[in-house]
Amino acid sequence: MVNEDLYPPQRLTVAQRATAAAGLDALLITPSADLRYLTGYPARVTERLTCLVLPVDGEPTLIVPTLERPAAEAAVTKTLRIVDHPDGSDPYPLVAKALGGAGSVRSVGLANRMWAEQVLALRDTLPGVTQRLAGEVTAGLRMRKSPAEVEALACAGAAIDAVHQRMGDWLRPGRTEAEVGADLAQAIRAAGHASADFTIVAAGPNGASPHHDVSDRVIQPGDPVVVDIGGTMPDGYCSDSTRTYVVGDPDKELLGAYEVLQAAQEAAVAAVRPGVTAEAVDAVARGLLTDAGYGEYFLHRTGHGIGLDGHEPPYLVTGNGLPLEPGMTFSVEPGFYIAGRYGARIEDIVACTADGVRRLNTISTDLVIL
Amino acid sequence: MVNEDLYPPQRLTVAQRATAAAGLDALLITPSADLRYLTGYPARVTERLTCLVLPVDGEPTLIVPTLERPAAEAAVTKTLRIVDHPDGSDPYPLVAKALGGAGSVRSVGLANRMWAEQVLALRDTLPGVTQRLAGEVTAGLRMRKSPAEVEALACAGAAIDAVHQRMGDWLRPGRTEAEVGADLAQAIRAAGHASADFTIVAAGPNGASPHHDVSDRVIQPGDPVVVDIGGTMPDGYCSDSTRTYVVGDPDKELLGAYEVLQAAQEAAVAAVRPGVTAEAVDAVARGLLTDAGYGEYFLHRTGHGIGLDGHEPPYLVTGNGLPLEPGMTFSVEPGFYIAGRYGARIEDIVACTADGVRRLNTISTDLVIL
Repeated sequence: MVNEDLYPPQRLTVAQRATAAAGLDALLITPSADLRYLTGYPARVTERLTCLVLPVDGEPTLIVPTLERPAAEAAVTKTLRIVDHPDGSDPYPLVAKALGGAGSVRSVGLANRMWAEQVLALRDTLPGVTQRLAGEVTAGLRMRKSPAEVEALACAGAAIDAVHQRMGDWLRPGRTEAEVGADLAQAIRAAGHASADFTIVAAGPNGASPHHDVSDRVIQPGDPVVVDIGGTMPDGYCSDSTRTYVVGDPDKELLGAYEVLQAAQEAAVAAVRPGVTAEAVDAVARGLLTDAGYGEYFLHRTGHGIGLDGHEPPYLVTGNGLPLEPGMTFSVEPGFYIAGRYGARIEDIVACTADGVRRLNTISTDLVIL
Repeated sequence: MVNEDLYPPQRLTVAQRATAAAGLDALLITPSADLRYLTGYPARVTERLTCLVLPVDGEPTLIVPTLERPAAEAAVTKTLRIVDHPDGSDPYPLVAKALGGAGSVRSVGLANRMWAEQVLALRDTLPGVTQRLAGEVTAGLRMRKSPAEVEALACAGAAIDAVHQRMGDWLRPGRTEAEVGADLAQAIRAAGHASADFTIVAAGPNGASPHHDVSDRVIQPGDPVVVDIGGTMPDGYCSDSTRTYVVGDPDKELLGAYEVLQAAQEAAVAAVRPGVTAEAVDAVARGLLTDAGYGEYFLHRTGHGIGLDGHEPPYLVTGNGLPLEPGMTFSVEPGFYIAGRYGARIEDIVACTADGVRRLNTISTDLVIL
C-alpha cells in the first residue's frame, strides 16, 4: 500500500544510524509527519497510544491500539513488527518491552509533536531515561527532500495554483469572507487535495492581521483581500500559497506598496541557492521592504519549510544561520500589514536546487484585480 | 466576540481555584480544547508558542506570536492580559516572567496535548519545577457540561443526524468509499459544521476495521457499510455518530447479529443515570454481545466523552469506576467486527441528566436498507 518512491522502507535504517550519531539510544514516534515519513503510516492523532519504537540496535516495533491494527497492517511494510493493545489496558509497558526493558536505554528522542500526556507517561515508564526531541534526528532527514518528494510538492503547488487561478469565481463584493472560504475549501479538495487545511480570506482591514481566518465581513468594492490557502495531498505533502486580490479599483498607495513587496519577494526567491543561509534570504526581503519604509509593517519571518507538515524546518528567520542545500523546500512570503487599513502578502513555495532555485508555485505574483 | 453563554469569563477564576485544590501552582495551556474552554480562543496549533499562563495567585497572561495578536485580541475578553513575541525571539522567558519568575512556582500543569517540543522547552526554562498535566484540573471541569454546552452538543447532534438521513443520496453500489466520503465531508459542512473531522465509510470486509477511513473499494450490492461521521460546529462543539447501512439485500446472519447489537446499544443507553459508573455502562453492552456469542468481535470500549474535543473523558471502559453525573456527555457505540466479512456499529451521543439520560442523536438506530 505504501508508495515506496515517496516512503522508502530503508528510512528506518537511515534513521537508526542518525539516531546513534546524535547520541540517542532510540526514537519514540507517535502519530505525526515523523511517523508517516518513517513508515508511510498516516495514523490518527488520538488519545489511544500509537508509537513507533525505534531502538538504535534491534528491531523496530509499531505499537497500535487493537482496533487500529488492521489499518496499520494495511499501511506499513510487511516486515515491520506490530504489537497491539486493547482498550482499557496500559500500553506503556509495551514501549519499555520494545526497547528491550526499561533499563536498556539512557536517552530517547520523542516525536516533537507528541502530546504532553504521553511525554509524562513515558517519563514515568522509563525513569532515569533522558528525554530529548526526535527532531534532532528527523528534522535533518526530512529537511533534505528526495527528488520524489520535491515532485510531490510541485504537484501540490500546481493544485493550489489552480485554485488561485479561479478566484474570480468566488471572490466578489457582497459576499462574506466566510462564504468565500467555504467555496475555497471545496475547491481545494476538488483540485486534488485530501484535505483543505486553511482558507484565510482577509478583506480590507482584516488583511492587517496576518493569521486572520475568515469572518462575517462582507467584502466591499475596492477591498484588498489577502487569500492564503493550502491543503494536504493524498500522498501527505502540503500546499501553501498566498496571493493578494483587489475587488474593484485599487487604492494608489496600495499599488505603490505592492510594487515594493513584489520586488522583495522576487529578490528573496532569486537569492536562494546552496550555501546561502536561511536568514540571508529573510534579510533580502526585509531589507528591500525596510529601505522603502515598510519594515515595521512586515510582522513575521520570510518563510517556513514545507513537506509532510505545512510548517517545518528550515525557517527563514533572523538568527537561523543554516546554509541552504539542494532539496530544501520552503515558502518565501513577505508581506505588509497596516493596522486599520489593509495588508498584502505574496507566498510561493520554492525548492533549493543544485545551482539555484525552482518555484513550485508557478503563477504570476502580480496583484490580481478582479 | 466570545459567546459568554458557552464560554463564561469566570472559568479562569474557577480553574485557578481548582488548580490550587489539585496542589498545582499554575496551568500552562497551549492551543487545544482546554485553551478554548478557558478563554474562548480557538487558537491555531502551530510551532509558534501560544500559551495561557494561569497562576493560582496572580493575573493570567496569554502569550501569543506577534502576528496572531490581532486574532487573539478579537477572540478573548478585554480584561485578559496579552503579551506577544516576534518571530526569531525566544518566547519561553515570557512564560517564566508571567509566572512571577522561574523560582516562584514548584509545580505546573501542562495542557495534555501540548507538544513535546514545548514540554521540554518549559522543562529547561523552569528547572526544578515539577511538570504534571493540566487535565488533572481541566478534565473534571470540562466533563461536567453546563446546560448551554449540552444544548450546543444537541445542536451538533441534529446537524450530523441530518447528514445520516440523506445517506441514500450518496451511498450506492458502484461508487467508491472515497467518493462517498468526499460527498459526506461536503454535506457535514453544509449541515452547519465548521469542519468535517472524519468520514469513515467502511464497506463489506473493510467494516471489520473499526477505524477504517475510506478506500478506493467500489461498494458492492449487498455490502454492509459502516458510516461513522463527525465534525466541529462553529462554536467549537463536536458531533460524532455511526449508523450501519446495507446497499441491497442484507445477509441473514448480519440481520441476526445486528438485532443483538441494537439491543445492546439500547440497553447501554438506558443504563445511563447519575451514580452508575462509566464501566458499568460498558459492561451492559459487552454483556449482551458476549451472551449472544459476539463478545470477541466487540474490539473496543463502549464510548468516549465528547465536547470541545471529539474524544475526551469520561471513557466508558473496563476499569473506569467514575460515577456518571448530570451534564456528562459521551458516545454509546458498541459494534462487532468479523475479519474478512463485515462489521457493524451504532453510535449515539447521550447526556446524563438529573434523572436518567437524553439522546443527543435522535434518529432511528435501525439497520438502514438502501
